Amino acid sequence: MAGTSSSAPIEFYGFWRSIASFRVRTALRLKGLSAEERVIDLLKGEQHSDAFDKINPGHAIPALLSDGAILTQSLAIMEYLDEVYPEPSLMPKTPIDRAYARALALVAVADTHPLVVPRIRHKLAAMGHDEAAVMSWCNHWTHEAVKTYESLLARRPAAPFALGATVGIADICIASLSVQAHFFKVDLAPYPHVATLAKLCFELPAFAESHPLKQPGAPQG
Amino acid sequence: MAGTSSSAPIEFYGFWRSIASFRVRTALRLKGLSAEERVIDLLKGEQHSDAFDKINPGHAIPALLSDGAILTQSLAIMEYLDEVYPEPSLMPKTPIDRAYARALALVAVADTHPLVVPRIRHKLAAMGHDEAAVMSWCNHWTHEAVKTYESLLARRPAAPFALGATVGIADICIASLSVQAHFFKVDLAPYPHVATLAKLCFELPAFAESHPLKQPGAPQG
Repeated sequence: MAGTSSSAPIEFYGFWRSIASFRVRTALRLKGLSAEERVIDLLKGEQHSDAFDKINPGHAIPALLSDGAILTQSLAIMEYLDEVYPEPSLMPKTPIDRAYARALALVAVADTHPLVVPRIRHKLAAMGHDEAAVMSWCNHWTHEAVKTYESLLARRPAAPFALGATVGIADICIASLSVQAHFFKVDLAPYPHVATLAKLCFELPAFAESHPLKQPGAPQG
Repeated sequence: MAGTSSSAPIEFYGFWRSIASFRVRTALRLKGLSAEERVIDLLKGEQHSDAFDKINPGHAIPALLSDGAILTQSLAIMEYLDEVYPEPSLMPKTPIDRAYARALALVAVADTHPLVVPRIRHKLAAMGHDEAAVMSWCNHWTHEAVKTYESLLARRPAAPFALGATVGIADICIASLSVQAHFFKVDLAPYPHVATLAKLCFELPAFAESHPLKQPGAPQG
């Protein structure tokens, strides 16, 4: 991983396809932190292995090993990185703005992404839904989140990032939702606030280099 | 709502059945804050009204009006309350412990609760699943979260609360999952770490008085 400004030995358990791994990978790069990414292949079910159960009994990635502690949950990891490596800051200064940043983050992290992860898709398949129906489910909830973000950003336009002049956790989460939209074929063109913000994010190397489709193992082309 | 130590006019949009509203209601009470609770009847679909769309275009409760700002997402609201009204603190002191508190919170807030909210149950019904199948879905994911919490709490036992001597955001979220377990018929008896922590929480008036089944409109008995 790019970035060399910290000597802290950070290990990062992720996977190319994981949208939550993208969020943490991007935060690490924005902070200029080196981390060794260890692959947990979600498509092979490696998150359910006995070895990974010792890392996260929730059987989910990302997980971060830092300072002898195991950290899980992308939002908790990003907040941790922002507290321990404060520059550049990924959170705004006032409690009201921090609450808004976290609320924006949670539209993707809580309301949306957990609905489309592998365990949900497998469960729907086990309930008799074919691949098209599972894709329709994922498309539906992703689309709902895009509409929510569009309404929120129309109300308080990005300037140019969601919380103002500098990129932060909210932008990372909105960008992650734009990747999810790509995976599940939600067209962002009718949602200019979301599309513009996502485009701006991916013009930054920390986002572009962290994109799921740019990671080892991702399909080519 | 009980508590009178603040004169800030806080308005709180919630509903008796809402597990996320329970979380914020409990945090307000732990802080000794007064708030006027305005009912958004999820069962009548009031979260989709034009009036509430102006509060939260994500059409979800809770929402909090404080200091002229609209705050959404239960975890973001709890963190805001902890920043603005720091005593008693609901978050631990070190970055590592805060990351763990947030990770525990997100098992309920992100990984689990969004899977059982009304919009999901309605969607499953629209996909042809009967009430028993929808209940089975809700039971399954709630049970998964109980198992995850049990593993996490077994690894680092509550002492007596999840992060140590004082109650906090992680405990609120684990208690909220215990309410969800009650609603969806997951027996906590095989999970002593979770059951003990939840019992301890509900011995505190802030939790007991905030319980969904103790709110106006809840079914009796």
